[in-house]
Amino acid sequence: MKQNIDKYIIGMDIGGTKLATVVADGKGQILKKIRKSTEAEKGAEHVIDKLCDMVHETLHLAKLTLDDVIGIGVSFGGETDTRKGLVYPHLPGWEAYPMKGRIESEFNLLTIIENDANAGALAEWMFGAGRGYDYVVYMTMGTGIGGGIVANGQIYHGANDSAGEVGHQILLPDGPPCRCGKHGCLEALCAGPGIARRAQEAIRKEPDTLILELADGDIDAVKAEFVVESAKQNDPIANRLIEETGFYMGWGITNLVNIVNPEIVAIGTIAVAAGDLLLNPIRDTVKKLAVRRAAEVVKIVPAQLGDLVGDLAAIALVIQAVRKAKGQGGKRAKG
Amino acid sequence: MKQNIDKYIIGMDIGGTKLATVVADGKGQILKKIRKSTEAEKGAEHVIDKLCDMVHETLHLAKLTLDDVIGIGVSFGGETDTRKGLVYPHLPGWEAYPMKGRIESEFNLLTIIENDANAGALAEWMFGAGRGYDYVVYMTMGTGIGGGIVANGQIYHGANDSAGEVGHQILLPDGPPCRCGKHGCLEALCAGPGIARRAQEAIRKEPDTLILELADGDIDAVKAEFVVESAKQNDPIANRLIEETGFYMGWGITNLVNIVNPEIVAIGTIAVAAGDLLLNPIRDTVKKLAVRRAAEVVKIVPAQLGDLVGDLAAIALVIQAVRKAKGQGGKRAKG
Repeated sequence: MKQNIDKYIIGMDIGGTKLATVVADGKGQILKKIRKSTEAEKGAEHVIDKLCDMVHETLHLAKLTLDDVIGIGVSFGGETDTRKGLVYPHLPGWEAYPMKGRIESEFNLLTIIENDANAGALAEWMFGAGRGYDYVVYMTMGTGIGGGIVANGQIYHGANDSAGEVGHQILLPDGPPCRCGKHGCLEALCAGPGIARRAQEAIRKEPDTLILELADGDIDAVKAEFVVESAKQNDPIANRLIEETGFYMGWGITNLVNIVNPEIVAIGTIAVAAGDLLLNPIRDTVKKLAVRRAAEVVKIVPAQLGDLVGDLAAIALVIQAVRKAKGQGGKRAKG
Repeated sequence: MKQNIDKYIIGMDIGGTKLATVVADGKGQILKKIRKSTEAEKGAEHVIDKLCDMVHETLHLAKLTLDDVIGIGVSFGGETDTRKGLVYPHLPGWEAYPMKGRIESEFNLLTIIENDANAGALAEWMFGAGRGYDYVVYMTMGTGIGGGIVANGQIYHGANDSAGEVGHQILLPDGPPCRCGKHGCLEALCAGPGIARRAQEAIRKEPDTLILELADGDIDAVKAEFVVESAKQNDPIANRLIEETGFYMGWGITNLVNIVNPEIVAIGTIAVAAGDLLLNPIRDTVKKLAVRRAAEVVKIVPAQLGDLVGDLAAIALVIQAVRKAKGQGGKRAKG
């Protein structure tokens, strides 16, 4: 049985538009949380100063001091270099910013930084849909499709922290453009904007659909959530779009499953909202297309942590680092 | 610096048609080797008895006894369950055969069994194209396309030893049938028979090509090696087929690179024979299609071990197991 961590943990969730700081106990119970806007355009130092203030404020709310804290986890919404402690947010004043060192020197505490999809995968493994499994993939499915791989309790980083980019595998080389600059990525087809685009194309041919009603008749206002909502009400065009989304997702997950051979693929946001309506066609496609033994072992499930994933992602990083230092980081951790 | 292994290692390379046993020293230098036909149709026990005889014979040739041996590595040409020590060759009398236990009890020696593509990846990491790198993928490209992943000196097995099946990712769901039962797998397009099939289709439209001459005018006798040979002699149809093969391979490797983020992708047989003629279009495609940071770090190279890969695969398994037991199994091993 794992020893509990008897100190507290600070988590930072850094997104393009929102910042959050939390303080949690060693079991991952969140005690206090503060949210503010990122104001990324004001530059890295401004954002870091803001985060540091938020840390002090969060500790104060929880009636704790820095002496009560064992470490800081940072879930960062962008590229990271975990070996060098850098982040690459592609914003002015941020290129290759030494975030780990900056935060460590500010608080003189163990600091772990990680890409949000990777950290989210660790959180789903530790607290959510992947609990009790050794090989877990977490996929985000919102404005983009990201991914993280946890193998035997460790985030699989790859050579330069770029592993798990399942959303940018190419399905249709002549397909629709993706924001990454390529064409026909899984993300371009199945992330929120991709579903909306396919819905708009369908509605132009067949405008008699609940999807358009939910968008108040404005085709430009069509969103993925209207498609999900309409499919739940059995709208035929929405059903077809969800089936098609399930096929593309299943195709992409087939390639992932053949290569990574996970026990769990936990999919976030849109898959959580749509549930079996989307998950069943995904499962059917994977069963049909993936290598037999890999298909037999994998379960495709909704992610479980919902809006908490960002906070728990940051906290999980520190818990796992402490466990690892104690030689407890390995397999089938039960939290 | 790693301590040398001062005992000898037995390797078994078990293929569908051929068996080999080798004895090597602790540095992987092969001293003696015996080859025989598998005669798989005579059943598992017959093959194992034959292998055991071959082991004694190989040791005898090398003037060694079992007392000089530290372990036996088995590179198996089929599905394995490395946790339970089973193999699944899909032959009569072989279903879920307990090969590890059978060989261990015969010789009372440490025995490691592994799928041949996984073991080949370990060998390329230890002795070949992946030497000095932490994240290495090895792809076979012969009658099929298989794959193995080595991360930080360990074979990445996945949940049930099915990881690395890069050849059965789906590129064209409505594409040509694959021997796995699906359609449009990378293997169906780019393994030897897939290249031959595409060549035959091309020749039916444009029969004026060196490829057909090399097949003595018999379209049914067209093989991938004639396509490679003709492309080397600048035959336009062969050039186009190799370009197309490079595109499909590059597309499949893009998906692999985005998910696994390796430093090295080492490709065997056909890629070795074709060299840059095939590797350059693969590299161009990966550079164009893969996620930027993953594309920046990866080198796509011919495998280096050639016909030795099967022998060294078996030997590498034992060397790595011994190193691991000594706490030396980790990163950037230099052999």
